[in-house]
Amino acid sequence: MEPIRNFDQLTTHLKNLQRRKRIAVVCANDANTEYAIARALEEGIAEFLMIGDSAILEKYQTLKKYPQFVKTIHVEDPDEAAREAVRIVREGGADILMKGIINTDNLLRAILDKEKGLLPPGKVLTHLSMMQIPTYDKFLFFSDAAVIPRPTLQQRIEMITYAIQVCHDFGIKQPKIALIHCTEKVSAKFPHSLDYVNIVELCEAGEFGDTIIDGPLDVRTSCEPASGNIKGIVSPINGEADVLIFPNIESANTFYKSVALFAGADMAALLQGPICPVVLPSRSDTGLSKYYSMAMACLTCKS
Amino acid sequence: MEPIRNFDQLTTHLKNLQRRKRIAVVCANDANTEYAIARALEEGIAEFLMIGDSAILEKYQTLKKYPQFVKTIHVEDPDEAAREAVRIVREGGADILMKGIINTDNLLRAILDKEKGLLPPGKVLTHLSMMQIPTYDKFLFFSDAAVIPRPTLQQRIEMITYAIQVCHDFGIKQPKIALIHCTEKVSAKFPHSLDYVNIVELCEAGEFGDTIIDGPLDVRTSCEPASGNIKGIVSPINGEADVLIFPNIESANTFYKSVALFAGADMAALLQGPICPVVLPSRSDTGLSKYYSMAMACLTCKS
Repeated sequence: MEPIRNFDQLTTHLKNLQRRKRIAVVCANDANTEYAIARALEEGIAEFLMIGDSAILEKYQTLKKYPQFVKTIHVEDPDEAAREAVRIVREGGADILMKGIINTDNLLRAILDKEKGLLPPGKVLTHLSMMQIPTYDKFLFFSDAAVIPRPTLQQRIEMITYAIQVCHDFGIKQPKIALIHCTEKVSAKFPHSLDYVNIVELCEAGEFGDTIIDGPLDVRTSCEPASGNIKGIVSPINGEADVLIFPNIESANTFYKSVALFAGADMAALLQGPICPVVLPSRSDTGLSKYYSMAMACLTCKS
Repeated sequence: MEPIRNFDQLTTHLKNLQRRKRIAVVCANDANTEYAIARALEEGIAEFLMIGDSAILEKYQTLKKYPQFVKTIHVEDPDEAAREAVRIVREGGADILMKGIINTDNLLRAILDKEKGLLPPGKVLTHLSMMQIPTYDKFLFFSDAAVIPRPTLQQRIEMITYAIQVCHDFGIKQPKIALIHCTEKVSAKFPHSLDYVNIVELCEAGEFGDTIIDGPLDVRTSCEPASGNIKGIVSPINGEADVLIFPNIESANTFYKSVALFAGADMAALLQGPICPVVLPSRSDTGLSKYYSMAMACLTCKS
């Protein structure tokens, strides 16, 4: 498989697959989610199951013309709608879970429920984003902009493991993963930079398979070959990172918001860890970004 | 004075001033610093004093044709060159200090020397950057991408005070300052968000003069009016921030590097706190960025 390098290629790839994944959407009451669903139906990349109040059932009447529009399920209360969607996924009635305009905490409560939720015991819940940046010639994946404030070493290892799997799904055989910091210096003042040393050693010992990991590096040295040359830094990343692992949620979130806004990047994002991909967009995400997140979920879904 | 909204306007403004500031440059051995000095001389916005080894004296022979090229001072050892430059500034022989290719720590040691340095007792040393982003219609100032890892409340107040002063120098009468976080929620899990509450209260009490401060806000809500509308957030910043105060060095540095690289932003930056502006570029900064930092220093210099 050739690597998928942009969202158009992703749509084309999904259209050529034999089977459509089924997405259960909770409380799709907003215009951007509505756009994303209509677009996915029009492209024919996924099937849909809508769970929500009577206003939603009304809104999506017009989409019933599409054969991939499976059905709507009427649940008036948002918390109950979240629990119902989770139940359907657990029972195999849907492959992917997606958040509409329901509060994130309320949906997460249903996902994290120890008895009836979607996260297997011991699994790390984390957020993996990807961007198509007009000034970068391939996808850039990064983590964690939304869930884990200060990843521990073990959590970082899980974040990297998830990212490698998603890279493989996108046809990237040997992912290049940069561990982000302000400088290239390891320092006890920044505990994450010490974790980075451990991770690079694990990678060199073969722990992550055919993967290149280096750090600490800054964003520029990770994504621009010339920058490393000026600084005299020799890194196997070579300014061509596929994945950026950020030190904390503030830096990852800053990356997410500022590159989307100022560089016109198109975004997608998923929760990693649950038994199925979970699309958990930010309220201010565009309709296009929500569509791309669905597409990312369809490609990486294992069911 | 009309606000200065881009670097071209800044150069024009400086050319029209009566007096040229004098910049002492330590170890200007690299091509990007050389470009910045030649450009500043060509535009006629500053005078120069070069302190460094014999290679530098050789290199800058050709610039002696400019009347603003004051002289070169031969000091072979970089640490000694740093101390000599600091001494010259203290004695009024230069208005601004600039770093060439000398190691940052070595120059900082000379600046921070309690007896012979440039930082008055009790003053906070911090880094203020500014960007001209093609997709934003005015300058965006931000702090701190390089010096203070985790600002305390008191340090944040100083950072804001410096930023307000610099905004005034640029003709921005009522600066809009956004206190950055991942969300708009205040939470004890993120101590900086509690500090933000204090700062907003201080601002409302008139502590910062005619200034608008709001937060926590994310980068997008701070700099894009439509984003706040979608989220239902009403902020006096209104998506038109002049200044972003970041929670920590990792997020500010990520902003700096990623917007420069992916959005093609032009950058400038200064150290705040010393008795004179200090230009302390990163090794990978472009020649243009070093020139703009000089221009920022010339405008904001009080001597």
